[in-house]
Amino acid sequence: MADCYTELEKAIMVLVENFNKYMTSFGLGKNKISKSSFRKMLQKELNHMLTDTGNRKAADKLIQNLDANHDGRISFDEYWTLIGGITSPIANLIRQQEQQSSS
Amino acid sequence: MADCYTELEKAIMVLVENFNKYMTSFGLGKNKISKSSFRKMLQKELNHMLTDTGNRKAADKLIQNLDANHDGRISFDEYWTLIGGITSPIANLIRQQEQQSSS
Repeated sequence: MADCYTELEKAIMVLVENFNKYMTSFGLGKNKISKSSFRKMLQKELNHMLTDTGNRKAADKLIQNLDANHDGRISFDEYWTLIGGITSPIANLIRQQEQQSSS
Repeated sequence: MADCYTELEKAIMVLVENFNKYMTSFGLGKNKISKSSFRKMLQKELNHMLTDTGNRKAADKLIQNLDANHDGRISFDEYWTLIGGITSPIANLIRQQEQQSSS
């Protein structure tokens, strides 16, 4: 990606490339991530984030909810929503810490 | 952030820090981004991404939908969803290009 891209754009592209790395490229479930690959992805790519915040249970619950509601394959939109669900409480925590340290 | 964090974790933190940069820190709408700040953020931080893909109209529509459905302030979860909505068609495009170039 060209150097002129902003930090935010580069960060978004990392999330896109990470999806492409774990998705199935052919056959049934093409362009989606299987639940087992998604779990592997969490362990490998989000390990520190989940460990640091004790947020692993929340992540497990999010994946379980997919079982009930979806086709067992995770589309890009679902992947984005799941990572958002994991990130949101962490973002709250960081905000609280920053506000406490600046007050 | 410590060097041990993965590329994905660092990328997610860029999205969190970008939200914190544009959010209101006090008073009404605390910990949310106003619509006008969100528009400014799109122009400044996602400018190339929106220009490159002709996706600006889609972004405008997403922000307009917020007008109808929300309180005029964008929470972290809404911010995450909006950026996902902008990213999703771009991610599809990249995937198609990669699949065409590898076939």
